[in-house]
Amino acid sequence: MRSSLDEAVLATLFTEARTQYHFTDTPVSDEELRRLYDLLKYGPTSANCSPARFVFLRTAEARERLKPALSPGNVEKTMAAPVTVIVATDPLFFDRLIKLFPHADARAWFAGNPALAEETALRNSTLQGAYLILAARAIGLEAGPMSGFDRARVEEIFFAESGWKSNFLVNLGRGSGEGVFPRAPRLDFSEACIEL
Amino acid sequence: MRSSLDEAVLATLFTEARTQYHFTDTPVSDEELRRLYDLLKYGPTSANCSPARFVFLRTAEARERLKPALSPGNVEKTMAAPVTVIVATDPLFFDRLIKLFPHADARAWFAGNPALAEETALRNSTLQGAYLILAARAIGLEAGPMSGFDRARVEEIFFAESGWKSNFLVNLGRGSGEGVFPRAPRLDFSEACIEL
Repeated sequence: MRSSLDEAVLATLFTEARTQYHFTDTPVSDEELRRLYDLLKYGPTSANCSPARFVFLRTAEARERLKPALSPGNVEKTMAAPVTVIVATDPLFFDRLIKLFPHADARAWFAGNPALAEETALRNSTLQGAYLILAARAIGLEAGPMSGFDRARVEEIFFAESGWKSNFLVNLGRGSGEGVFPRAPRLDFSEACIEL
Repeated sequence: MRSSLDEAVLATLFTEARTQYHFTDTPVSDEELRRLYDLLKYGPTSANCSPARFVFLRTAEARERLKPALSPGNVEKTMAAPVTVIVATDPLFFDRLIKLFPHADARAWFAGNPALAEETALRNSTLQGAYLILAARAIGLEAGPMSGFDRARVEEIFFAESGWKSNFLVNLGRGSGEGVFPRAPRLDFSEACIEL
């Protein structure tokens, strides 16, 4: 029977990890971004559909393009982050199921059912965004996820050709700890959970 | 500078972890469910809004109630699982922001904007569901997430009073490994990622 991971690991992933607003100048390397993807890609998605797409904004120029879509409170920290990730969704994700789900003709489940395709794309790309946050922590990076931005504007700026949708943003780097509030309360087990 | 977690840890969380369809008879304890929640609750959500609610179906009777809502392919494995979690969403999550986000009147951002509230609830409860899957792996459990079920039916059966919404299901326990396929392919970095 497999045992729990060490407390130090749980602290890195969950109990002591914090959303970061400011990062040190240390760049995030090519190798780290590939390692990040090569972990998060293994997180489970429905029928392995893997609808998330990740746009890594690595240069100041690329982040300048994003700037007009950001909520005012997210501009400064994003412009200064080593990398900003646009967690996006490919609405035509089902065209890749021939590779991703060779067991059955899963493409047909979605291609003829736009409501199911949209729901599946959104839920599963969000799961993959969470895997990215935790995979970043696992490889020694820290994350600053954000949903304060104009999604339609991001799509105009970056996805006019691909037709991808924007889901949320994540700043990545090594947190400086600056501006991190004391941990806010969470709901107790009895407030968030029911046992039947 | 923090270093990466060990390869063995990354294997437990990502590279060797697999969705499980069948579980051993070993029960999931009260303590494990509390430990699971006490980790996942620290995963980041927008303005700490924490909209997910978790219904742990621990008895055969509780899972029988769920049965009519399940897709045929999900019935047998769910009836035999030690625990099935309904990952749900409280559409009135913003009523808890007085506790969760004491820095500002965040309730007002959502209470007057139903579209933003719905989008926020769905995205963030899905993130929390992903944190549950990875937290389960971190404490020595394994997960079998499923979206093949009738969401409206689950809401009729379980949430007629609370008004919660169903998002997805997760079987939990210690996987027997039975019925696990060879790992299906993932998209390559160049298929899923863009660097700008």
